[in-house]
Amino acid sequence: MASLSHKDLLGIEQLSVDEITLILDTAEALREVSARAVKKVPTLRGKTVINLFFEPSTRTRSSFEVAEKRLSADILSFSTATSSVTKGETLLDTAHNLEAMAPDIIVIRHESAGAPHLLGRECRSSIINAGDGMHEHPTQALLDGLTVRTVKGHLEGLKLAIIGDISHSRVARSDTLLFHKMGAEVCVCGPPTLIPWDFHKLGASITSKMDEAIDGADVIMMLRLQNERMNEALIPSTREYYNYYGLTREKMRLAKKDTIVMHPGPMNRGVEIDSDVADSGCSVILNQVANGVATRMAVLYLLTGNAGLKVKKTSR
Amino acid sequence: MASLSHKDLLGIEQLSVDEITLILDTAEALREVSARAVKKVPTLRGKTVINLFFEPSTRTRSSFEVAEKRLSADILSFSTATSSVTKGETLLDTAHNLEAMAPDIIVIRHESAGAPHLLGRECRSSIINAGDGMHEHPTQALLDGLTVRTVKGHLEGLKLAIIGDISHSRVARSDTLLFHKMGAEVCVCGPPTLIPWDFHKLGASITSKMDEAIDGADVIMMLRLQNERMNEALIPSTREYYNYYGLTREKMRLAKKDTIVMHPGPMNRGVEIDSDVADSGCSVILNQVANGVATRMAVLYLLTGNAGLKVKKTSR
Amino acid sequence: MASLSHKDLLGIEQLSVDEITLILDTAEALREVSARAVKKVPTLRGKTVINLFFEPSTRTRSSFEVAEKRLSADILSFSTATSSVTKGETLLDTAHNLEAMAPDIIVIRHESAGAPHLLGRECRSSIINAGDGMHEHPTQALLDGLTVRTVKGHLEGLKLAIIGDISHSRVARSDTLLFHKMGAEVCVCGPPTLIPWDFHKLGASITSKMDEAIDGADVIMMLRLQNERMNEALIPSTREYYNYYGLTREKMRLAKKDTIVMHPGPMNRGVEIDSDVADSGCSVILNQVANGVATRMAVLYLLTGNAGLKVKKTSR
Repeated sequence: MASLSHKDLLGIEQLSVDEITLILDTAEALREVSARAVKKVPTLRGKTVINLFFEPSTRTRSSFEVAEKRLSADILSFSTATSSVTKGETLLDTAHNLEAMAPDIIVIRHESAGAPHLLGRECRSSIINAGDGMHEHPTQALLDGLTVRTVKGHLEGLKLAIIGDISHSRVARSDTLLFHKMGAEVCVCGPPTLIPWDFHKLGASITSKMDEAIDGADVIMMLRLQNERMNEALIPSTREYYNYYGLTREKMRLAKKDTIVMHPGPMNRGVEIDSDVADSGCSVILNQVANGVATRMAVLYLLTGNAGLKVKKTSR
Repeated sequence: MASLSHKDLLGIEQLSVDEITLILDTAEALREVSARAVKKVPTLRGKTVINLFFEPSTRTRSSFEVAEKRLSADILSFSTATSSVTKGETLLDTAHNLEAMAPDIIVIRHESAGAPHLLGRECRSSIINAGDGMHEHPTQALLDGLTVRTVKGHLEGLKLAIIGDISHSRVARSDTLLFHKMGAEVCVCGPPTLIPWDFHKLGASITSKMDEAIDGADVIMMLRLQNERMNEALIPSTREYYNYYGLTREKMRLAKKDTIVMHPGPMNRGVEIDSDVADSGCSVILNQVANGVATRMAVLYLLTGNAGLKVKKTSR
Repeated sequence: MASLSHKDLLGIEQLSVDEITLILDTAEALREVSARAVKKVPTLRGKTVINLFFEPSTRTRSSFEVAEKRLSADILSFSTATSSVTKGETLLDTAHNLEAMAPDIIVIRHESAGAPHLLGRECRSSIINAGDGMHEHPTQALLDGLTVRTVKGHLEGLKLAIIGDISHSRVARSDTLLFHKMGAEVCVCGPPTLIPWDFHKLGASITSKMDEAIDGADVIMMLRLQNERMNEALIPSTREYYNYYGLTREKMRLAKKDTIVMHPGPMNRGVEIDSDVADSGCSVILNQVANGVATRMAVLYLLTGNAGLKVKKTSR
């Protein structure tokens, strides 16, 4: 397996175990670029990447932009927050218009599940899904996989607990798919109002009791609680949510000694996670951000037709 | 004629036939850059281009930005939608301040007709008019000229029908000027409330009957109907507009076999143009977008003092 | 003194006389880059600079961006006006997240005094203060110093009058610190409601009479009057303000023949300064803008570990 079989990265669903491994290996190899004095390689010189964000995003978009710049791509970024991307145009007309300017890759975030897939079918360019509705967010799952693999050495056989608002989280969905594919055990946990009843079909076990989720977990992944969930009456109050599902130092006593804690960010300190935990040695939250750049570099690298990379393990 | 005679591109009005041909030839030669694996030439390396958009624009601005990046320019982009360009400053103070940072080219879109001309007089930098009020939009007319010339092989002797809201369209104005200069016959068509009574002075014939406009036309250029025109009571309803001036497959039966259809975008499908026509073989709408990048590259290329290019016609 | 002693540029307060001279010398040497045909040097190639603007800014941000591009840096720009930088995240979480993407320099403007200092302590990256609350704006003071030194040949022994809203001006504060350190005499002048009672501690003399301030001044620096000051009832009316503190040709008669006039921009013509003066030969306002790019290039250059530069004085 030296390259990806699809022209697009639409979701974890479409990736084989070998392809996931290929992306993680390549990301691991490219990670050192960001540690150099000159953090730049010419791989994507003269390639045009369009970042098309129909939902506000700072973190994912800047991660992609840094990755693109470190690969020397030419970049065009749109966000509907700041520009009239469409003027009532259909998504497809927008895409075809952008395509006519000969981009190589279009990174798209869209509030509708399936929007990137539509573009994938209609465009010559490679499409990268940077989050579609409540569906998938594959580069997030890949960077999470890289983060865990880097600390634990492997993914197979691990237990991952994903805790919080599972229903509205494309991160939960993509992570469940990836970790399940890679042979890890996935347990999702949250208030019953925030867990889709059919999530077990993705290979996850389900619980509403946080101690069950934490018990034996190698990885605890906390999800951000959106304020609007409370307005929708899906949770009684953030205080009550914190009591049941907030990750505190006390709840961490139920975890294993070497359990690591993750969060896709931005964190609500004191809501879903306590500062005691977020800033402790078990937290790999900032590693996730660093790995985000490496993972997106790997995806951009592979989708432009480059063969995968692998860090050489030197014997000592 | 190896170079442009003005330091600025303010309008089609100021261009000679030779200059228009020079730009189109150069654009044709630069078009292949966007078809390369490495879509980049070093022509504008170390040149600073400022994009100063006082009106929202995604399409024109992104076309300029792609052109600038493919020529390796350094770019600074402002749009009043997202930044406090002026804080009540006069346009001239803004321009002088930008000039002090030593840009080579300023691309300006402004709601006032003549704003680019003011800058042209006051600034050392080359000014490119990216649309001024209801006055001119010269790079749009040039890319339209390139699109027609590429399909038809020449502009002279063709009949061009421009249909829609002529009054509020700088595209209609610039296209009329360009095609008339290049020896084409221009007919403008629309509801009487949306045609300026003195448009014939630009060299166009005028009609309110769409069948007259289409009859014998080699090129049909549909204009976007702005929603606000209905509010202003200039048209009775979009439905009625569609019935009279919407380009349908039925109306296309009046056209010649090889008539091509153009639209500056973004399209209102089902208002001024039907999907049947927009997506048919006679539509060159996406070619316009692709030629937009090449045309803007040509203008940037020529205004920075480079001699014109010409595709070599090889005998087979 | 061949390099800066701190990893950050937080304020003029932290700079020694030698360091200020080092920055001005380096800026003077880098000024010629913007006069070249190819306005670009590879010094910051592969370095990542993040521009993090929590207050709207066009002028300072674009000056930094031009400086960064002319040094070949990779740039990521955020402004809270257009992006959800934080989603309720703490400033420190935002900074740590950005840091995880391995930037070399973070340029920050923030409405809270001391925000850049916090980042300086917590981040590995070099932090540049681009304005913090009503505290400091060191690159503005440095460019003002460069502008005066270029015209007058030296700073020591000069008299600088800073006129306007001293209370709300970080420019007044940083300039007072810098010019005082460099051996100039600083007099601040404005309505008593707009002068902090303890400003003399920074080394400035204080007056509310404009003729006293102008008398003997080598440099008159006018400050922008924010409209909101009138709403806050700190000044009676802009008309009255103009009568007392507006710089008119008439008031300039009190000045020396070779007095120069400065303004950090954007100007309110007819409020704090008359066009007669702003556009006259004594105005060096546009020089300030040009020197802004050179000064920011120098700071970026020095903070990335480069040794200072100095223009060689050639004998003729």
